[in-house]
Amino acid sequence: MSGATFFRSRWVERPGHVRELEQTALPQGFRAAGVAAGIKPEGLDVGVLVSDVEATASAARFTTNARQGAPVIVSREQALDRLRAIVANSGNSNTGLGERGLAIARNSRAVAAEALGVEEERIGLASTGVIARELPEDALLSGIRAAAERLGPDARGFSEAILTSDRGPKRACLEVELPSGTVRLAAQAKGAGMISPRFATMLCFVECDADMDAQTVDLLTGVCVQRSFDRISVDGQLSTSDTVFVIANGAAGVRVEPETEDELRLGEALDALMRQLALEIVADGEGCRRVGRVVVRGAVEDVERVARAVADSPLVKTALHGADPNFGRIMQAAGQALIGRPFVVDLAIEGRQVVAAGEEVPLSEADWRELEELVQADEVEYELSIPGSGGETEVYFSDLSPAYAEFNSAYTS
Amino acid sequence: MSGATFFRSRWVERPGHVRELEQTALPQGFRAAGVAAGIKPEGLDVGVLVSDVEATASAARFTTNARQGAPVIVSREQALDRLRAIVANSGNSNTGLGERGLAIARNSRAVAAEALGVEEERIGLASTGVIARELPEDALLSGIRAAAERLGPDARGFSEAILTSDRGPKRACLEVELPSGTVRLAAQAKGAGMISPRFATMLCFVECDADMDAQTVDLLTGVCVQRSFDRISVDGQLSTSDTVFVIANGAAGVRVEPETEDELRLGEALDALMRQLALEIVADGEGCRRVGRVVVRGAVEDVERVARAVADSPLVKTALHGADPNFGRIMQAAGQALIGRPFVVDLAIEGRQVVAAGEEVPLSEADWRELEELVQADEVEYELSIPGSGGETEVYFSDLSPAYAEFNSAYTS
Repeated sequence: MSGATFFRSRWVERPGHVRELEQTALPQGFRAAGVAAGIKPEGLDVGVLVSDVEATASAARFTTNARQGAPVIVSREQALDRLRAIVANSGNSNTGLGERGLAIARNSRAVAAEALGVEEERIGLASTGVIARELPEDALLSGIRAAAERLGPDARGFSEAILTSDRGPKRACLEVELPSGTVRLAAQAKGAGMISPRFATMLCFVECDADMDAQTVDLLTGVCVQRSFDRISVDGQLSTSDTVFVIANGAAGVRVEPETEDELRLGEALDALMRQLALEIVADGEGCRRVGRVVVRGAVEDVERVARAVADSPLVKTALHGADPNFGRIMQAAGQALIGRPFVVDLAIEGRQVVAAGEEVPLSEADWRELEELVQADEVEYELSIPGSGGETEVYFSDLSPAYAEFNSAYTS
Repeated sequence: MSGATFFRSRWVERPGHVRELEQTALPQGFRAAGVAAGIKPEGLDVGVLVSDVEATASAARFTTNARQGAPVIVSREQALDRLRAIVANSGNSNTGLGERGLAIARNSRAVAAEALGVEEERIGLASTGVIARELPEDALLSGIRAAAERLGPDARGFSEAILTSDRGPKRACLEVELPSGTVRLAAQAKGAGMISPRFATMLCFVECDADMDAQTVDLLTGVCVQRSFDRISVDGQLSTSDTVFVIANGAAGVRVEPETEDELRLGEALDALMRQLALEIVADGEGCRRVGRVVVRGAVEDVERVARAVADSPLVKTALHGADPNFGRIMQAAGQALIGRPFVVDLAIEGRQVVAAGEEVPLSEADWRELEELVQADEVEYELSIPGSGGETEVYFSDLSPAYAEFNSAYTS
């Protein structure tokens, strides 16, 4: 095992009943592979993952963007509560090509079904990479056939085949002690922080060898996605291809019934897993140096808007990058989201109150110097209290650096 | 006169009945001055402008941010339909200091009233610069007194005293031929493109020597602000201090009655003036190389949201900076604003259709090369058609460059 290297963020605690295994390990009854099919100029670009258990249950979540890639459109037609296999590729997101794109996605599904011996409707598809260019179909199909022949009990190749501009693979395998027995939970994710149709997208595939009803998988997936991938922002841009698949095959022989301690504990593990992966996506943004967390408490109808306004403000993001504890930009962004409301806001940065009831709290030279030290950390926390009560939310966000603008300005065809 | 140097944008046409005068000239009956009072480390930082005519009418518009600077709060209490004078400073926006900030703003009003012989309630205030630092009151008050002693018939010093990170002054003086006679219309604006409480804010002061009711001034101001300063975005960030004052003193002896050809013609001139100044603000963003215009046509309830989503997308902005004609980012941003709606969108870049009904229009090599040439211009136009009809809007936006991120990341106390 690779030690406590996965739960790196101070915002995610490893639950006591969770132990880290080798990050590329898979739960029982899952096999995967990744191959270099030539869709990308170099590196692995086609991945296949399959559960060997017939009675596999699953859940899925997709982007809500009105513009969706062909793999998202086709996956939505699948039997999403009993997916057994995933076909994913990087290098081309197969988005914006109309019927031709849909045909390529459906053909890839057919080829995978034949190569894996799995019904077509039980295969989930995901693609990430350049958009509005035709995905080289021959490369994809032969890649799927090649990967199906090399399936093995680890996710090393699969986790690499889904990457685009990521600095490195995002993956983990956890051993989870439940009252009814021990199960494994693994995940492979990608996302370069930025959500861009040209370069990136957020994908996460989760495997578990517990035995669960599809409703249980769906419930846990929904709750955990809301607390992880729904709570991050790099640039406020929603991809056309975001996809989460969670698959549970029961191979461990441990049954997780609804509304039990087993379900609760497994949910805690899945929550920690997805939150840490979400934070890795934020931290992996191009040029990202620091990750911010903004917590907003106040009126239910306002907290989300204020948190997003702060997290997506380029001025707040550049200040985070520059380790600038000046809070004026946070007040300005919050004020922009509170038009027509009284501006009675408290703000703490790293636990130090800097604004009370909308006005600056006078800080001593020493306090100010301490604050300047604190905001140079890799993770910086802002807590806002706004008028009203009952609402609380958080958003994790990356900074905005010259490198981000450089990377995204550079023309590549 | 300085020639046809003011109406530089292809998106603003000089109306036929408008002639450009020396850019620092003022209409009759106005005097102004700018002095270096020491609020900024160097340069002019306090400006005073006054109409010598008792019967002056005016209108004003302010930021809608819930967080507002003291000068905005105090100005809102003024007799906004009959302002005679403006006191403006740069270097410190007097925002976020509570009662102390309000007291400084009110004291500056009192000193200006005495020095100019104008009633307190007829003085508009505007400040721009660093926030949450106490504005040096002595410097401001002595600056106002000094400026009041140096008032002259041109706006050179005044237009410079309101600048922060602007590359240069933004100002014009126009001679407008109306059916009833000739009047002058002048304006001084500032705004470094970015809207940041630390560095910038958008201010615009307009003087006219036509004789108008306050209602007419207000009507023209409202219409023209909506078509100019309301339609620009650098970083989607709303300042705490945005202010527009429009003052008409009748010194030219030309009466502009409501709903007359005079009003229409004057409105056209004011419209062109404000639109060109707004475009200068966008073009003056830190690191800005290119200005984009997105026009959206379709359902009334959707066009504004889609236009803002495109204009504020960092991915669209970096592509504009990089002269990348790839339209995937525009589709993605539009899709993000159209969640739950059919994505049947047409897109033209510089008049060339590149997307039809949501799918790519195949372009020849030659067409593509032509498009790549076209997007290297200083101004690039995108036209989107979305489902529905009856709605049309436009937003002008700056690109996003590494220099923007660099400038806004750099810590300055």
